[in-house]
Parts: sequence; structure tokens; C-alpha cells
Amino acid sequence: MHEPLDVAAADAYLRDARCGGLNLFVGTTRQWTGTRETVELAYECYEPMAIKEMQRLVDEAKARWPIERVCVLHRLGVVPVAEASVVVGVATPHRAAAFEACRFLIDELKVQVPIWKREHYTDGTTEWVQGAQPPRVEGEG
Amino acid sequence: MHEPLDVAAADAYLRDARCGGLNLFVGTTRQWTGTRETVELAYECYEPMAIKEMQRLVDEAKARWPIERVCVLHRLGVVPVAEASVVVGVATPHRAAAFEACRFLIDELKVQVPIWKREHYTDGTTEWVQGAQPPRVEGEG
Repeated sequence: MHEPLDVAAADAYLRDARCGGLNLFVGTTRQWTGTRETVELAYECYEPMAIKEMQRLVDEAKARWPIERVCVLHRLGVVPVAEASVVVGVATPHRAAAFEACRFLIDELKVQVPIWKREHYTDGTTEWVQGAQPPRVEGEG
Repeated sequence: MHEPLDVAAADAYLRDARCGGLNLFVGTTRQWTGTRETVELAYECYEPMAIKEMQRLVDEAKARWPIERVCVLHRLGVVPVAEASVVVGVATPHRAAAFEACRFLIDELKVQVPIWKREHYTDGTTEWVQGAQPPRVEGEG
């Protein structure tokens, strides 16, 4: 989807009478990475493949934790500073599992799902990054 | 505060150009705990003491993680099933710290902050629980 991600809608979707808590991760465009200033990021992917991989990660998480509700949303196209590129949410009966499953999903999404990111810096340079590159993954937020 | 907690407002407050991500935990009233059905929970506290303790936890978290923005909100009074009793949110430059600090804050809040919970079950019984009781803390979400 190319529109802004709706965190309130994700929260509403995740509410479930069987659950005692939900954990939401919102990944946002950061202005500074070291001394380089980012103007904006842009994301591209081959959607059928990205959605299939995201579904596979959700299935894996459901096999590992007692998840009642889950959402994984990734914005495509340009994402300005402080806006959300990704929202991951998990609702579970007890909170520990919600934290663990949410962390698993965002960490694995960054490594496994083929979504490319173009960083556009104020010095005029641009750079394409694929999430699977470990040195960058830690810096993405 | 006795009004419903506003997760969208928390998300908006946590957005920061210095941050690559934010983590939100929303604690909700769960309908079932084992075979007992909860009608509603109600929370009470001595507000000046609870706020002071929450501020102390926030200060401790800020000393341990590079937190740019943080919020800790707890509802008081009756909280119906699936509604939020607590919202904790943390924004940091990189995502690992956001998860860790958010988890620390909710775990410590349950143990350290003097907020009492009254569980009202469908079998007509009620029970007062203070967060510091370890066997209940794991069950709260």
C-alpha cells in the first residue's frame, strides 16, 4: 500500500477479549544516520512475493506463540521523516508472548522479506538497500 | 485518568525525526482467566504516589536506553473487556532499545507502582489484586 499506515486501525483490529495485551512496533523514517541526513526513504517490492513471505512469517509466529490477532503492514513508495514504513502488531493472552512475537516478526521481516529501500540523503546521494544486509538492518530502527 | 486511553494520540506523541522506531504496549481487560470469566476490571490508586513511581521508572529507563520519547498512561476506574487499562510507548533511534525499554517499563510498572485492581467475575465474586503479587502479574497481560 502506498498510503500512510493507520496505527489506530491496527490497534482496533488487534483488540480481542481473549487477550490481556498487545504489542505494536512502528518503524519510522529517521532523519539522521550518523552524520548523513535523510530527506526521505522509498520502498519497492514485488508485491506477491513480499506478501507471501510475510504470510509465511506470520504462520511461523503463530506456531510458536499463542497469537489471537496479528497484523503486518508495510508502506511502499516515499515515506517522509517520522512517518511509518512498517507496522507490526500482535495480541496474546499474556504480554510476554506479544513482545516476543512482535520482535520476531519485525526482525525476520527485515531479513527475509524482499523489500528494497532507497535512501535519499541531503548531500544528493541515493542508496539502495535490501533489508537482508545485516550491517544495515541494525540501523534501520 | 478515568477516560478511555487514546493509543492514536500516544503514537502521534511518540513520533520523532531522531527515531527509527517506536514500541507500544497496550494492556487490555481479558475476558477469561482459566475458567473464570471477567465482567470488568476496576483500578484504583493514590495518584500522587503512582505518578511519582511512574516518573521514577521513566527516569530509570532513560538512564539505561537512548530514549527520545516515552509515555506511560494508566486508566483508573472501570475498564471493560478489550479496553485498555495501560499504554506504554517508547521511541528510540534503533528498534532493539524500544522493545527492551517498553518491556522494562510495563514489567516494572506491574511490580512497583501501587495501583490496585478489582476483578469482577461472572460468578459474582470480586477480588482485589495488587500488581506486586508475582503469581498474578504473569496473568495480567
